Amino acid sequence: MIHTGRHFLQIPGPTNVPDRVLRAMDYPVIDHRSAEFASLGAEVLDGVRKIFQTASPVVMYPASGTGAWEAALVNTLSAGDRVLLFETGHFSNLWRQIAEKFGLKVDYVPGNWRKGASADELAARLADDKDHSIKAVMVVHNETSTGVTSRIPELRRAMNAAHHPALLMVDTISSLASIDYRHDEWGVDVTIAGSQKGLMLPPGMSFNAISDKALAATAKARLPRAYWDWQEMLKPNRTGFFPYTPPTNLLYGLREAMRMLQEEGLSNVFKRHDRHAEATRAAVRAWGLAGKVFRIGHLGSFNDLTLAGTLCGVEMGLRLAGVPHKEGGVLAALNSLAPASSKVESAPMGR
Amino acid sequence: MIHTGRHFLQIPGPTNVPDRVLRAMDYPVIDHRSAEFASLGAEVLDGVRKIFQTASPVVMYPASGTGAWEAALVNTLSAGDRVLLFETGHFSNLWRQIAEKFGLKVDYVPGNWRKGASADELAARLADDKDHSIKAVMVVHNETSTGVTSRIPELRRAMNAAHHPALLMVDTISSLASIDYRHDEWGVDVTIAGSQKGLMLPPGMSFNAISDKALAATAKARLPRAYWDWQEMLKPNRTGFFPYTPPTNLLYGLREAMRMLQEEGLSNVFKRHDRHAEATRAAVRAWGLAGKVFRIGHLGSFNDLTLAGTLCGVEMGLRLAGVPHKEGGVLAALNSLAPASSKVESAPMGR
Amino acid sequence: MIHTGRHFLQIPGPTNVPDRVLRAMDYPVIDHRSAEFASLGAEVLDGVRKIFQTASPVVMYPASGTGAWEAALVNTLSAGDRVLLFETGHFSNLWRQIAEKFGLKVDYVPGNWRKGASADELAARLADDKDHSIKAVMVVHNETSTGVTSRIPELRRAMNAAHHPALLMVDTISSLASIDYRHDEWGVDVTIAGSQKGLMLPPGMSFNAISDKALAATAKARLPRAYWDWQEMLKPNRTGFFPYTPPTNLLYGLREAMRMLQEEGLSNVFKRHDRHAEATRAAVRAWGLAGKVFRIGHLGSFNDLTLAGTLCGVEMGLRLAGVPHKEGGVLAALNSLAPASSKVESAPMGR
Amino acid sequence: MIHTGRHFLQIPGPTNVPDRVLRAMDYPVIDHRSAEFASLGAEVLDGVRKIFQTASPVVMYPASGTGAWEAALVNTLSAGDRVLLFETGHFSNLWRQIAEKFGLKVDYVPGNWRKGASADELAARLADDKDHSIKAVMVVHNETSTGVTSRIPELRRAMNAAHHPALLMVDTISSLASIDYRHDEWGVDVTIAGSQKGLMLPPGMSFNAISDKALAATAKARLPRAYWDWQEMLKPNRTGFFPYTPPTNLLYGLREAMRMLQEEGLSNVFKRHDRHAEATRAAVRAWGLAGKVFRIGHLGSFNDLTLAGTLCGVEMGLRLAGVPHKEGGVLAALNSLAPASSKVESAPMGR
Repeated sequence: MIHTGRHFLQIPGPTNVPDRVLRAMDYPVIDHRSAEFASLGAEVLDGVRKIFQTASPVVMYPASGTGAWEAALVNTLSAGDRVLLFETGHFSNLWRQIAEKFGLKVDYVPGNWRKGASADELAARLADDKDHSIKAVMVVHNETSTGVTSRIPELRRAMNAAHHPALLMVDTISSLASIDYRHDEWGVDVTIAGSQKGLMLPPGMSFNAISDKALAATAKARLPRAYWDWQEMLKPNRTGFFPYTPPTNLLYGLREAMRMLQEEGLSNVFKRHDRHAEATRAAVRAWGLAGKVFRIGHLGSFNDLTLAGTLCGVEMGLRLAGVPHKEGGVLAALNSLAPASSKVESAPMGR
Repeated sequence: MIHTGRHFLQIPGPTNVPDRVLRAMDYPVIDHRSAEFASLGAEVLDGVRKIFQTASPVVMYPASGTGAWEAALVNTLSAGDRVLLFETGHFSNLWRQIAEKFGLKVDYVPGNWRKGASADELAARLADDKDHSIKAVMVVHNETSTGVTSRIPELRRAMNAAHHPALLMVDTISSLASIDYRHDEWGVDVTIAGSQKGLMLPPGMSFNAISDKALAATAKARLPRAYWDWQEMLKPNRTGFFPYTPPTNLLYGLREAMRMLQEEGLSNVFKRHDRHAEATRAAVRAWGLAGKVFRIGHLGSFNDLTLAGTLCGVEMGLRLAGVPHKEGGVLAALNSLAPASSKVESAPMGR
Repeated sequence: MIHTGRHFLQIPGPTNVPDRVLRAMDYPVIDHRSAEFASLGAEVLDGVRKIFQTASPVVMYPASGTGAWEAALVNTLSAGDRVLLFETGHFSNLWRQIAEKFGLKVDYVPGNWRKGASADELAARLADDKDHSIKAVMVVHNETSTGVTSRIPELRRAMNAAHHPALLMVDTISSLASIDYRHDEWGVDVTIAGSQKGLMLPPGMSFNAISDKALAATAKARLPRAYWDWQEMLKPNRTGFFPYTPPTNLLYGLREAMRMLQEEGLSNVFKRHDRHAEATRAAVRAWGLAGKVFRIGHLGSFNDLTLAGTLCGVEMGLRLAGVPHKEGGVLAALNSLAPASSKVESAPMGR
Repeated sequence: MIHTGRHFLQIPGPTNVPDRVLRAMDYPVIDHRSAEFASLGAEVLDGVRKIFQTASPVVMYPASGTGAWEAALVNTLSAGDRVLLFETGHFSNLWRQIAEKFGLKVDYVPGNWRKGASADELAARLADDKDHSIKAVMVVHNETSTGVTSRIPELRRAMNAAHHPALLMVDTISSLASIDYRHDEWGVDVTIAGSQKGLMLPPGMSFNAISDKALAATAKARLPRAYWDWQEMLKPNRTGFFPYTPPTNLLYGLREAMRMLQEEGLSNVFKRHDRHAEATRAAVRAWGLAGKVFRIGHLGSFNDLTLAGTLCGVEMGLRLAGVPHKEGGVLAALNSLAPASSKVESAPMGR
């Protein structure tokens, strides 16, 4: 297949890696036991916490997000522990399977994939758990499969109201650095994240942000762990090092991505994603589509024209595939992105 | 200014350099007197002739296109020589200035910037030139400033019909590898080209394709020349070398660009440009714009979605700038690119 | 600190990543569920087996080599299982710790860090194990900390002679693609490898080559596993896919590294490493050093001049640090690399 | 031919391009008529003057150094003008040929290729030139073919003593940013330079630094010029632009190279080159070579280990080619770079 022009990557992740990040990664590997590395390690380990909006440590694994899911569990729980996990879509299903493979008893709260986790349902379940047998509440912040976002602060409030000691674990793989997320303020105990979405990096690195309470839980957690062991990570991390060979080139990329996020400003990053989400919804409404789901990815490194090109691709795809729809979704998106002045005539484009 | 997402370069050149070409250039320089270099040199010097559709030699300068204009003149003409140059737009004006700086007498055939060079006008002028004082006929194949293309075969036929010995010099800076162009079949004597448009390379290299007749003209040409001297170039070129330090990294890039053009097939490259041109025209007609000119560049490395994103950018720009227009140019372009099936409802998108 | 000129990375790994590999990785991420990805996945999953010299499957993890150690254990063993591991150096110690974290009972065969694993000792231990309680024999092929290589075929012969059913697990992290290694011919059950040494890639990917016997062992292995689960990997691998997001850019790099190894020829790669090892030893002997160990890395992408520059760096370092030594180690290495003709006079270089 | 490890580029230019510079160039081209470009243009046009140690303008051509030679002549001279050029080696010969092609009368001051330009000879010749028919004194600062450097301040003093109005033109192609060079303080009128040596860039860009006196000379200079015309350059340069398409990616590289030179400090750059030159000479003396010349390039991005590797390559080459020499040149260089403490025993390495 011949590609001409730049390929549009419009999936929900991995996302487009900016040239600056790719080029930052395109450098020789350095000795991961050297002073030069320590300076890099310290910078990214410290700086990445701003993105999680936390003062707590964030550990980084050479692993995909799936590994960070596993890490959250094996560091804090023991076989036979009961956990509560909200069904939000395909990825909550996958997380459930991992938990069960490690012998955890999963209370899987049914969901219809159209709504996020229910704080009322959580309150009811916690109220029933008089003996605090639930050790962790697990939720996917933004379900990558559906785009549905759960309201984490409401869940936290329900836990606080119930005075329930369970850990709160949140998967932010497709939300971090795209949707406002506050590890500390929202009282999250373990935040799971990956490199390949809002952080604009290639896949291959994943994260756990860890509250003091989560860290304390490691003392009683009996699941076996070595690669994922937080305690092994945190000690060398204090001086910018890692217990085993780190993914140095991804760390180069992370440093550059952090600079880019800082230059734009996290709050502007969130606004940009909101604005693109609104324009995308306008297009979908205009097409009048219903029924079958497909995903239009606009996470990470994106601007108005890459979004517009993407939506044009969708509209052309609908035409070519003979999918019944109303034309003009793109125009609706343009109306959303660039509200027209009075000098524009509305012009039906029928054939 | 903060850039998010990929910048859309939608000018008529320099054009978008594909990642493959940029990456091919991102290599250490090698010794330009080595056997390894000779192999590179021979490959590009030989291969580039396919793009000019010629069996004649093509010389390459570390220079912008302006240098290749100058080279065409100083190798073939003498101060005081009369040349005939068609006014087609801004770039024919610039070429005229260069010719005059070298003491050539330019018959500048007036044009209205809306039409290409007239074969009838040429025939008439050649008929008047009984003593063959006109030494060269100069024409810009595709005027970068207006997008107007001249019909070179018609001009050649007029010259042949008049049995006029003038050289035919054609500037293909914004047409080569985008619009069908045939140096040999069309009987062109000197073709001028640059790296930064259809060849998908950064600026910094330019070309002269040279007919036997043009080469013979060097013997009598009295304009002083050193850097641009074809004869100095052609000798070392025979073994893949250059008389002075060549732009090695651009040659790496040219090798890769040639491979990409070959993979797609030159005729497919031309069809792709035609198709995008038609869609762009459909957009412009739909907007109902008149009067002031601006240029929408879709030369080189481009696909349907980069074009669509570009046109969306134009339509949003028209809105934001308050330029009176009818909305829906983008939709017209999509109609052109992806003719809709019967299942699409025409839907006015008025607000 | 100001760097001028290229940094010499002369540690035992990560090794120097060739420009070709870095550049191959410097490309946009593609959709890991697309046909284009499947083609990449199939190519690397198939091709990498040549490097392990196996017809069996090789699974690839987004992880450092430490993860691949863990994967070998959790897929084949159960808590309480007895394993026999040879002490060869720092890295055998680390592997032991991982095994113990997973509740394995490790018979750690003492070693003096100067010799590889002893086949006689293995034979004796297996003879004692009448009831076949030893489930795995674990050995580091080339101890990264000391450079001592164990003879895997001798160990296999001892196991065969004892008719002992234990699995043979071999860590080739610092030997694969540098020292001859034959997974199939030598009857290895699990081979552990990483991306960042002989494969000339950045760190972040690691491997398990898996014999039929090892695969069969998964059925009875009770250690919990999800991320490392071979069975989850092997199913999608059959069509070129991965169960979770793969490290796409490292796969680009692996494809290029495989091409480079094929162009040079694996047997030539091994010869090159032997030749450089011999020259390095000549230098060390000439310096007359004794006692304290330091490592001179010449794994992976290396040539005579990078080795020579490295050794010059060592000799200058010895001078500047005031370490007692005889000068001339570099010259001894040159003598080894380029045996002199009779026209060279031996010239003492005393000051 | 199979390359393993990094190729050693040890010619006198093009030199090794640092990764930082290559990566800075590996970016999409931007519109050369945009505000973003103006900022880049202004930064490099202003900053590059520090490297020439001048407050005067420096023009930049998309061209090799040969073009900058030609530019110096065509902007300041007329056909038939007499110029004085010192023979220093191969490159003074080439410059002479260019001058003669433009109809200049060259007084070629004979030299033996072993010494630089003689200020005494210049004084004598200027004294003879009572009517000031010599319009320019031309000299190559560092003869690339031999490495011989001429003392520009002495030449200037001779011209001043003679009160001779000729322009002083200096070729610094292989000296700029490697050997101390002061355009203003030394009273040079036109300095010629190229991108591919001390500036650590790929070939393809060259420079003229222009004194007020040289600029004034353009008014009377009658040689035809367009591409090389300083006046056409200087006007748009004032706002960061260029009269024709500039080599944008080389300008990206120049910006990065300028940062690197500033980080190291120009005076440290010069010291580093001196130190490497001294070590190289020590090696050559130790080898006891005589007669035939070959060049050992250590210009630009170089450090002790790249130099040491290079010299090892030479010493091995001498062995393999059977060239009579004394061994130990490398050791002499190491002695020069890293003077040994008393703990090193001098150890003859004879076989």
